[in-house]
Amino acid sequence: MSITWLKKPVKQILQSDLDAALAYQNQLTKPAGSLGRLEDIAIRLSAMQQTDKPSVDKIHISVFAADHGIAEENVSAFPQVVTTEMIKNFARGGAAISVLAKQHDACLEVIDLGAVIEPEKLEGVLSQRIAAGTNNFSQQAAMTEEQLAMALQIGHDSILRAIKNKVDIYIGGEMGIANTTTAAAIAAAILQRPAEDLVGPGTGVNAQGVAHKASVVNKALKLHANKMNSAEDILRCVGWFEIAGLCGAYIAAAQQGLPVLIDGFISSVAALAASKINPQSVNWFIYCHRSAEPGHKLIMEALNASPLLDIGMRLGEGSGAAVAVSLLKSACALHNQMCTFADAGVSVSE
Amino acid sequence: MSITWLKKPVKQILQSDLDAALAYQNQLTKPAGSLGRLEDIAIRLSAMQQTDKPSVDKIHISVFAADHGIAEENVSAFPQVVTTEMIKNFARGGAAISVLAKQHDACLEVIDLGAVIEPEKLEGVLSQRIAAGTNNFSQQAAMTEEQLAMALQIGHDSILRAIKNKVDIYIGGEMGIANTTTAAAIAAAILQRPAEDLVGPGTGVNAQGVAHKASVVNKALKLHANKMNSAEDILRCVGWFEIAGLCGAYIAAAQQGLPVLIDGFISSVAALAASKINPQSVNWFIYCHRSAEPGHKLIMEALNASPLLDIGMRLGEGSGAAVAVSLLKSACALHNQMCTFADAGVSVSE
Repeated sequence: MSITWLKKPVKQILQSDLDAALAYQNQLTKPAGSLGRLEDIAIRLSAMQQTDKPSVDKIHISVFAADHGIAEENVSAFPQVVTTEMIKNFARGGAAISVLAKQHDACLEVIDLGAVIEPEKLEGVLSQRIAAGTNNFSQQAAMTEEQLAMALQIGHDSILRAIKNKVDIYIGGEMGIANTTTAAAIAAAILQRPAEDLVGPGTGVNAQGVAHKASVVNKALKLHANKMNSAEDILRCVGWFEIAGLCGAYIAAAQQGLPVLIDGFISSVAALAASKINPQSVNWFIYCHRSAEPGHKLIMEALNASPLLDIGMRLGEGSGAAVAVSLLKSACALHNQMCTFADAGVSVSE
Repeated sequence: MSITWLKKPVKQILQSDLDAALAYQNQLTKPAGSLGRLEDIAIRLSAMQQTDKPSVDKIHISVFAADHGIAEENVSAFPQVVTTEMIKNFARGGAAISVLAKQHDACLEVIDLGAVIEPEKLEGVLSQRIAAGTNNFSQQAAMTEEQLAMALQIGHDSILRAIKNKVDIYIGGEMGIANTTTAAAIAAAILQRPAEDLVGPGTGVNAQGVAHKASVVNKALKLHANKMNSAEDILRCVGWFEIAGLCGAYIAAAQQGLPVLIDGFISSVAALAASKINPQSVNWFIYCHRSAEPGHKLIMEALNASPLLDIGMRLGEGSGAAVAVSLLKSACALHNQMCTFADAGVSVSE
């Protein structure tokens, strides 16, 4: 299976479309700029969607779930069985992302890329299992080249389904016990920082647990140092099926011209990997929230990103992106429905 | 007309209700605390509304509009006629708050407390005119004691209408050319700071204009210094019908037990005045957004408030609060619809 598609050019966003949307915003009955970032969002979406009336009504959410070999190293507050239990909870509608998807009438699909315990067949869950979890990357590469290619392709194909359903935006989420450890390892390798700068409490380990996560990651970074010469190598050595899936999805979305909402810590690491593999892909990313996970700050800085929300969320599943959808809806409604100064007969500034 | 009602006790929020809502949040299928401030909001709303299932489905928005004598001093980028033009724009559905009210299916009423140019009779606009604008407070008190009492009562009565309609939350907005100057004067007087710390560009004056606003405010603070011995005095001397209206509404809402969403700079100054007149009223306030108007930071500090959104908005009209409604909706949906660990059969942390 080839991964050469990753390097194909992304769809261009035209400066003329951005300019036209800005010129229109400045005619609306408010002091120019007074809607702050809601104006930027409407302008970007207008240019991305190549329409005068941007919209986020139709939303596709893919949650990538799988297990991590690294969980053996005791890096999470929750047992590994929770990955499969949560896949069932997503399908049943009881998880945070299920509730938010319902709030926005979004299409939610859960992709099982390889939980250790295979769930029974469930409506809303796609079984695209690569293996029963990645390898323990503190001892060997997390996956083979073939497995990496499969995970990237699974992400790519989720975008094709979203495009087929003619959605306005795409959200990728993730679930997998120990995934903040993996994400920290990828980010540390890409940013060439010590693990201590990227690890955090995740689902709730204490200070001792955080130090343990850092030592596990540092050991692994040393083990794989000679083999990690590209973002693709890093994903294969210390990555995980879902982050690779997300990364593939993000690049494919940019190639297809579908705006992507980036969630928190894990998703941002996937975006960071995407930015290294196909730098122009970031033009299609809208960063939704600042994670309470401490390492997120460095990743946002590396991506020159300033997320919309900063409300202490740290759940994953795509939940922060799904909460931010409401802001995008307001941005579009204001852009599309406000009167212009001329139409409303309101005097302009002196 | 008496204003003694301002001092009547506010409704109590029971610690036992807060505790019960927190205990329930901690049973939901997510690491405890991982929904960040959405958890706090759901818990507070649950206790405020005394229900297991908090809700923000029914929303009342009152926009208080009036003119300011201080506009004579050339402190705004827009001509005074815009106040009346915008009242018409609110009613016609073309303003930002009109669009956001429609997005949330909220009841929007515009109250004309005294625009210089009286608008014709319009659906959705209540004519409760006190005078054709306040006096120019750089020369005399902005209003009489009777006028202040009327403005406060108009705010109070807007809450009675909201309660009658059994709404879940209340938003107060405002419109009036030159109102950031008035708000800065009130805040400077309450916080005992120089005007330079509180004035800003408002609708878009330049640095020279900001300096001029500061000198106008400082001159007025000096003129009225001996008469400003309470927040009520300050509202009367350098205030404005809408801020008094908002202040009356906020206190009445707290007395009636109706949660209030506080918008940006102007609304926060009204909240600050309310906190001085009836300190317990703040228990009912939810601070929605950090205004781009520079003086807002000091006011938030004085209120010990950390607003939910920080997206560079500075429009007023209640628009920031109306945008934040979506976050409250997500908070309620998550609280009300997520599965518990027990119901979902998900293992708890180790």
